[in-house]
Amino acid sequence: MKPERGPLRVALLGCGVVGSEVVRLLREQADDLAARVGTPLELAGVAVRRPERVRAGVDPALVTTDAQGLVTRDDVDIVVEVIGGIEPARTLMLEAMKTGKSVVTANKALLAEDGATLFAAAREYGADLYYEAAVAGAIPLLRPLRESLVGDHVHRVLGIVNGTTNYILDQMDSGGAGFNEALEEAQALGYAEADPTADVEGFDAAAKAAILAQLAFHTPVTAADVHREGITEVSAADVAGAKGMDCVVKLLAICERVPSEGGRNGRGVSVRVYPAMIPRTHPLASVREAYNAVFVEAESAGSLMFYGAGAGGAPTASAVLGDLVAVARNVVGGTPGPVEVTYAKLPVLPMGETVTRYYIHLDVTDEAGVLATVAEEFARHEVSIQAVRQVGLGEEAQLVVVTHRAPDAALSAVVEGLRGLDSVREVASVMRVEGEE
Amino acid sequence: MKPERGPLRVALLGCGVVGSEVVRLLREQADDLAARVGTPLELAGVAVRRPERVRAGVDPALVTTDAQGLVTRDDVDIVVEVIGGIEPARTLMLEAMKTGKSVVTANKALLAEDGATLFAAAREYGADLYYEAAVAGAIPLLRPLRESLVGDHVHRVLGIVNGTTNYILDQMDSGGAGFNEALEEAQALGYAEADPTADVEGFDAAAKAAILAQLAFHTPVTAADVHREGITEVSAADVAGAKGMDCVVKLLAICERVPSEGGRNGRGVSVRVYPAMIPRTHPLASVREAYNAVFVEAESAGSLMFYGAGAGGAPTASAVLGDLVAVARNVVGGTPGPVEVTYAKLPVLPMGETVTRYYIHLDVTDEAGVLATVAEEFARHEVSIQAVRQVGLGEEAQLVVVTHRAPDAALSAVVEGLRGLDSVREVASVMRVEGEE
Repeated sequence: MKPERGPLRVALLGCGVVGSEVVRLLREQADDLAARVGTPLELAGVAVRRPERVRAGVDPALVTTDAQGLVTRDDVDIVVEVIGGIEPARTLMLEAMKTGKSVVTANKALLAEDGATLFAAAREYGADLYYEAAVAGAIPLLRPLRESLVGDHVHRVLGIVNGTTNYILDQMDSGGAGFNEALEEAQALGYAEADPTADVEGFDAAAKAAILAQLAFHTPVTAADVHREGITEVSAADVAGAKGMDCVVKLLAICERVPSEGGRNGRGVSVRVYPAMIPRTHPLASVREAYNAVFVEAESAGSLMFYGAGAGGAPTASAVLGDLVAVARNVVGGTPGPVEVTYAKLPVLPMGETVTRYYIHLDVTDEAGVLATVAEEFARHEVSIQAVRQVGLGEEAQLVVVTHRAPDAALSAVVEGLRGLDSVREVASVMRVEGEE
Repeated sequence: MKPERGPLRVALLGCGVVGSEVVRLLREQADDLAARVGTPLELAGVAVRRPERVRAGVDPALVTTDAQGLVTRDDVDIVVEVIGGIEPARTLMLEAMKTGKSVVTANKALLAEDGATLFAAAREYGADLYYEAAVAGAIPLLRPLRESLVGDHVHRVLGIVNGTTNYILDQMDSGGAGFNEALEEAQALGYAEADPTADVEGFDAAAKAAILAQLAFHTPVTAADVHREGITEVSAADVAGAKGMDCVVKLLAICERVPSEGGRNGRGVSVRVYPAMIPRTHPLASVREAYNAVFVEAESAGSLMFYGAGAGGAPTASAVLGDLVAVARNVVGGTPGPVEVTYAKLPVLPMGETVTRYYIHLDVTDEAGVLATVAEEFARHEVSIQAVRQVGLGEEAQLVVVTHRAPDAALSAVVEGLRGLDSVREVASVMRVEGEE
């Protein structure tokens, strides 16, 4: 039996939507948490920038603007960081670990930009660094990848990891709205921020993709390694075109192991975020509104899916609390949990080498030989056509082409070539197609 | 930095469908596993009953019939049990923990019948006891419940946890087959065993429900506590009736916290397995063939779903390997992981107190006043009717009644009463309805 110990003291950095939920849960679930950890969890302090804004339910005596002082205090055992952003979050977390404290964070931006520095500090100082809340809110995803699938060989992670863009695309799909209209509605309902750039340009999803790829492939991946395209260019015509193919447009985060001739680990990984068509029969197609879902394909486990609320104060706080209990148990037990290992060190391949499929919608002149000229352009770049369909006549003549799998660079070159053809009046739409061929 | 240590030695009990996959993965992924654990994993021995049957890929020199000798050997660090059943599995696992070894098991029957003895031994001897593979194959489900949601308050777990019965019910739904026909097809395809009792009578699902309830509610629950009904009585007419309601019949494992007037923990838990109708719009309705999926509803996290292959050699072996890596890291780190805590000790309520809804299909005489007589029977037991529909006329006159939520005992009493009415020729079908009202 272990000796009894006093309460574990928790410092909270940030007290916004997530932080105030963490405070509430620590209070409301105090007895349960104490039973599960083996000792009570006690709030030691809450660091904020604007103390006058701190919400109801937080003891004013605990509030401080001196975050630096709080994380280095001797009576603090665990630091919970929910400020977000790179600085001062990074400095504060490093300071905390340096003084032997374990850290729980929801900071996807920092982990995706400079996770290596944080993991190195965790390893050096024997501290825990847990971050389940950084990806897909309350959906248990990182722990399953880190631990449950740690004995398996992950081939692919394919997910909807940004609720705002899924809400917008879902509105475009179900109501026929254009991007701007759907965005305005999402903003009115609180699903999108006043400045929606991080979401609609794919930065948020790209940070999450980097974190997922790193865990799935035991390989260092940063946000800068991720090929990123947002949804601002997705038109009502694209969504309608997808419907015609019995597909739906989703912003996907895709982390893939690229196979090589020999060797199990493959010749590298592909990590990318872009809007793509997926068949309506794919389980991700039915993820509606602001929900998140992630598909994982592993060698032995087969296909797994994790689904739930990807954001919001309470769901994110649930993930933070789960990590907090895990870290607290490690503190009680005297041994930190396993630190990330990126032993595989697979290269992140450039987008041009990634193998995908394209859907291409062309406005063409209605004359004999157009199809032959277009097909010739595909053949020149060794891209094989899966299906081609002619729609309309005369001024309205259109071709819809769907390719087989080919390197993205070859597909781009085809599109470039098509733009130069006299018989092609306009390349109206280009979109990648994901899911089974 | 920790000192270098030699390989960790693993003893395998059982070498059937799952065991032989474990052996294969240990060999094929040896380098990856060593990197992830921090030291190699080495097979120390494989205990089987019939050594002549051991599959290809297993070194004959490692095979033994002396399981007892193997689990107590000094050069064994971790024992993996995939024999199944109560004995000798229990004795072997207890012996292993007594001599300081950690245990990974896929044995749902034993955990559901006598988990308390095993957890007590794990606690007493400071050993790990991990069992992700016991429920829902490769789907990471227990670890999320044990760890990710440990800071949350789980209200309900609702799942399809038996692939055989889901395959049968799916065939009945899509092809209109009867139970016997669908069972025969499942047997021919290897989805059902020659003796399908454990699956079709709900014993397998009930064991899993007990394990899930225990983790979700931190309360001891055994298989004997679980109200259990199988699918052998589900008729083609029931499935057709469900279709008429825009529902589908699924064998559900349901673990529910039953709220009380005061107090967060509720007045008890309800744990049950039975075939029930769920709306086709419910995410569990689209779980086809032999797949498993589990819905979890928690206070802060909201609704989560976990989906994947629920059985099979490779998926189950993936879950075993995940646990094996976790346990091995704990051995390297020198501290076992957290042991189950059942501090809440909530009572398991009798089925009669469980609140559900009923679908009741009656053959009635076609005369004035039948509906009034039937409605009177519901009112007598204070069961409120949500909808009633008359189908057919004369000899074919039928009533379909769907109730609001009411205690199961009251609903049973209504059915009993209906059977005694002169105007009711037959109670053709009774089925519970789950999912949102």
